[in-house]
Amino acid sequence: MKSSSNHSQQPVAASPSAIDVVVREVGLRDGLQLVPYTVSTEVKLAWLRAEAAAGVSHFEVSSFVSKRVMPQFADAEIVAAEAIKMPQLNAGALALNGRGAERAIEAGVHTLIYVISASQTHSGGNAGRDTDQALGEFRQIMARVRELPSNERPQVLAGVATAFGCTLEGRIEPTRVRELMSAMAEEGPDTMALADTVGYAHPSQVRQLCQQVMADIGSLPLGVHLHDTRGLGLANAYAALEAGVTAFDSALGGLGGCPFAPGASGNIATEDLVHMLEAEGLRTGVDLDRLLEVRRQLPEWLPDVELRGALALAGPPDWSPAQRPASA
Amino acid sequence: MKSSSNHSQQPVAASPSAIDVVVREVGLRDGLQLVPYTVSTEVKLAWLRAEAAAGVSHFEVSSFVSKRVMPQFADAEIVAAEAIKMPQLNAGALALNGRGAERAIEAGVHTLIYVISASQTHSGGNAGRDTDQALGEFRQIMARVRELPSNERPQVLAGVATAFGCTLEGRIEPTRVRELMSAMAEEGPDTMALADTVGYAHPSQVRQLCQQVMADIGSLPLGVHLHDTRGLGLANAYAALEAGVTAFDSALGGLGGCPFAPGASGNIATEDLVHMLEAEGLRTGVDLDRLLEVRRQLPEWLPDVELRGALALAGPPDWSPAQRPASA
Repeated sequence: MKSSSNHSQQPVAASPSAIDVVVREVGLRDGLQLVPYTVSTEVKLAWLRAEAAAGVSHFEVSSFVSKRVMPQFADAEIVAAEAIKMPQLNAGALALNGRGAERAIEAGVHTLIYVISASQTHSGGNAGRDTDQALGEFRQIMARVRELPSNERPQVLAGVATAFGCTLEGRIEPTRVRELMSAMAEEGPDTMALADTVGYAHPSQVRQLCQQVMADIGSLPLGVHLHDTRGLGLANAYAALEAGVTAFDSALGGLGGCPFAPGASGNIATEDLVHMLEAEGLRTGVDLDRLLEVRRQLPEWLPDVELRGALALAGPPDWSPAQRPASA
Repeated sequence: MKSSSNHSQQPVAASPSAIDVVVREVGLRDGLQLVPYTVSTEVKLAWLRAEAAAGVSHFEVSSFVSKRVMPQFADAEIVAAEAIKMPQLNAGALALNGRGAERAIEAGVHTLIYVISASQTHSGGNAGRDTDQALGEFRQIMARVRELPSNERPQVLAGVATAFGCTLEGRIEPTRVRELMSAMAEEGPDTMALADTVGYAHPSQVRQLCQQVMADIGSLPLGVHLHDTRGLGLANAYAALEAGVTAFDSALGGLGGCPFAPGASGNIATEDLVHMLEAEGLRTGVDLDRLLEVRRQLPEWLPDVELRGALALAGPPDWSPAQRPASA
């Protein structure tokens, strides 16, 4: 049984007024999906603690999916139980159906993440149900969340995957994505997100769809989850920033990747994202030098996994913050 | 002696009305600077022909520098002589002083490229003179160019290097960059460029400085030369695009790099740039599939050279142009 104290550690960001944008580390979930061996709970928690100590406050720590299908996340309960005890950390976990959501609620995660794929084909493969069935499931989950006592109620992050195109279906109609986002918004999630699951998005497409969705969903904060498969991850993040997006998913070392594109990068690299955001004059709350120290530990924690990202090789520009060029 | 027919192959782009942005391949100059062996003239010309056949129309084919200092470009005259004979191709070459400019003029290049570094320290190391001396040299070169008969007169591309920061000096004052660009503009070059020589730029900085410089130099076309050292190359290119920039330097396979940052990428990869621009709905004149075929030949032409770029690994999105999402 989880205690109500799990949630007393919120508010999530230590001092929300001290940061301008949220960097949400998804390496422990999205990033581990393609690692070809099971990473130990000990390593996951060491990574989580080290990156949190560098100032990253939002994490997707695991996925409450079938342990048979995804043995990588068989320790989801254990990881979540430790994560929610860490100070000033928002521990989120993914659920793809009601059973997963129930496990996440029981585990006491701060944020329950639920994603619907706009692509029927992708939805079928990923969640075992079509898009409308997934929306129905979301409505049931939200009904369940709303009936929880407030001290047991997680925040809900609701998103649409393959929002900018799909390797299986090609073009995804923006109107369909907007319909899904609006339908989810009606259920009262706390934050929302658009995901470029396969790295098909280009900058003006991201800016336009983000602007449209933000107009649709009103005051709900919008984030983006961008894969860098075709090198446009940071350009797309910048376009989202221009649209007013204030939350960005990323994975340390650009983990993620696609099994069908060997060597292609996965998520945007957290260290490269933080560098861009800070260079743009936005406070992330992250200490970039300490984050790069954590990045240097990744090869020990994840042997034989190809890591990406430019900053880990080149280092940050060698000027003090006082020397930093003024942003527009 | 060069014949006046060298220039009769201009106008440079086969059908300027058919392209919206100029992609200028600098792999044969910037990209070869750090290759640790001398590339044969035969290989250079094979690459040039193949990439031109894929629709790239603007090339920086060599550098008229001291053969002793840069043996890589000892064949500059031979490469230029062949390049200017290729149909519908604008062959440009770099010169760092009056002697180099004279050789470029004699060789009959379509475009003479002259760059001043805004960083005194970098200018001293790169060109053997400080910034003001380099500006004086540019004025002399322009006086020489203006006195040439029109059929022997190259176009001139004048640029400022380390325009967004310098590894040696840190911050570079935007006002200094604007002064230099304006002083060069007064001499009547045909196009101008701003270079992020060391990969220090961030997107809003690029957009802002490009906008300011465009206001300063009036109707002169402005291009950008962006290194991807810290992963921001394409984000910066997108920001330049937003500012109204219509010419972009890049190197096939992301060649270039920095000797002090092993593995860090150099210029933005031509194939990734073309993909972004075309996805944005802009016509580059380049056939991306054919360009990727040329990219696949690079490892044969340049053995043991590390190549970068996402698209070569992941491939372009699998949708027809008709399916392509509408741009904003």
